[in-house]
Amino acid sequence: MLMSHYVHGYSERESERLYDQANAVRELLHGDTDYPTGSEVLEAGCGVGAQTVILAKSSPDAQITSIDISLDSIDKAKDLINKEGILNVHFRQADIFALPFEEERFDHIFLCFVLEHLQEPVRALMELRKVLKTGGSLTVIEGDHGSCYFYPQTDEALQAWHCLIQVQAHLNGNSLVGRQLFPLLKKARFHNVKISPRMVYTDSSKPKLMDGFVKKTIIPMVEGIEKQALELKLINKTSWNKGIQDLHKTAMPPDGTFCYTFFKGIGIKQSLKHV
Amino acid sequence: MLMSHYVHGYSERESERLYDQANAVRELLHGDTDYPTGSEVLEAGCGVGAQTVILAKSSPDAQITSIDISLDSIDKAKDLINKEGILNVHFRQADIFALPFEEERFDHIFLCFVLEHLQEPVRALMELRKVLKTGGSLTVIEGDHGSCYFYPQTDEALQAWHCLIQVQAHLNGNSLVGRQLFPLLKKARFHNVKISPRMVYTDSSKPKLMDGFVKKTIIPMVEGIEKQALELKLINKTSWNKGIQDLHKTAMPPDGTFCYTFFKGIGIKQSLKHV
Repeated sequence: MLMSHYVHGYSERESERLYDQANAVRELLHGDTDYPTGSEVLEAGCGVGAQTVILAKSSPDAQITSIDISLDSIDKAKDLINKEGILNVHFRQADIFALPFEEERFDHIFLCFVLEHLQEPVRALMELRKVLKTGGSLTVIEGDHGSCYFYPQTDEALQAWHCLIQVQAHLNGNSLVGRQLFPLLKKARFHNVKISPRMVYTDSSKPKLMDGFVKKTIIPMVEGIEKQALELKLINKTSWNKGIQDLHKTAMPPDGTFCYTFFKGIGIKQSLKHV
Repeated sequence: MLMSHYVHGYSERESERLYDQANAVRELLHGDTDYPTGSEVLEAGCGVGAQTVILAKSSPDAQITSIDISLDSIDKAKDLINKEGILNVHFRQADIFALPFEEERFDHIFLCFVLEHLQEPVRALMELRKVLKTGGSLTVIEGDHGSCYFYPQTDEALQAWHCLIQVQAHLNGNSLVGRQLFPLLKKARFHNVKISPRMVYTDSSKPKLMDGFVKKTIIPMVEGIEKQALELKLINKTSWNKGIQDLHKTAMPPDGTFCYTFFKGIGIKQSLKHV
């Protein structure tokens, strides 16, 4: 299996977290993505459908095929799509490294928070490129855990945060992938590659974002790797507890501030004569 | 003396670096600042005038008073302003903590890359507030060295970068001040405080920015603290040399990427009856 173990797990709480994240940063990450009427779009690695809903609503006249390697996630994504009354999405269980589609099948490809979990991101992009039509676009959104800083900043909060990066590395993922999108897309032979950082900044003048992003998305993500961090002896329990407590202070008025940056990249598949 | 020793020194090369920085990120940092005709603006901590030129050109019909504690810097700033043919700036040597102006003398106040060098940033802001008219704005721009990350990222490059943060801390400055602008302005009793991050992202599709910002601004800033870093034994010479070499790779095609974020904050002085 080429996909590393999904670092954040498959719990109910994790599904909630993913939906909260999608809503808190929806406009920032997805506001400029909408596909034309009739276009065939592949969403690779749809997970529990948190981004699928946004994608489908932003491009109501496109046909979206959403794949994931986990059948359980697909079931959750289907439930969500049905609950939302969305009709332009078809789901299919599939492995990015063994895509069950003919070449040049799709007009556009979209993937969000997928590359960070893959051991061979360039190979994944090359596989996706095969099923993309010449002239079509690939859009990829990833975070970068090295882009995170906050105030107040304590040693323990930093340590807890670094545990997240280390646990993901231990599972053969790469949570520092955002800053690498440019070289990754270039290595996978995409053209006209454009990367745009999407920074989330919160302070107490933005209580809704502080709540939806920091409290409901970021801190639960860190809390979710407690067991692995302690088992791997990356941190002791006392420091962990203080670290989590301190992270909560970065989301509290009047002084807390928090910064995290996502990266969105777009590349085009050119015909061979242009390569 | 309440201002910590200026970490970057007063060399010719440093002046060049400051002018290069101002140009590389001019639009990003200053594009939305322009003061109305006839308004009286105080620029606090003008240094060698790198920002003064931009300020004066963006607000040609405002009257700008630029102060700095260093007479030598003011002389350089004067030369620059004269060379540029700018007529709406008056210079004066002055200490932020002992301002030679009557209360409510200015319509607006501007400061850029100043708070990072001060031991008591809130007290500085309170002093500036006194000479600001009720209803007037204070605009502050600062970097945050903790916002910096890059690709490829080696241990030595990170170490060299952290030396910069530590040297500044050793000189009683705070290079992580950007993320703190919100609490600082609130503590100094400014109202309607709005902070906006200004992120610089470079990859090889932006060769001009890579050159002007990473090669001519950022790396020379790190190189400038070599002596202090080695004297303070923060790093050994071999690691330092490799760190600098590795930092240069972050500004090289095809793979290098570099991220740094500035913060711009604006606050309003309200009358006491509104406080």
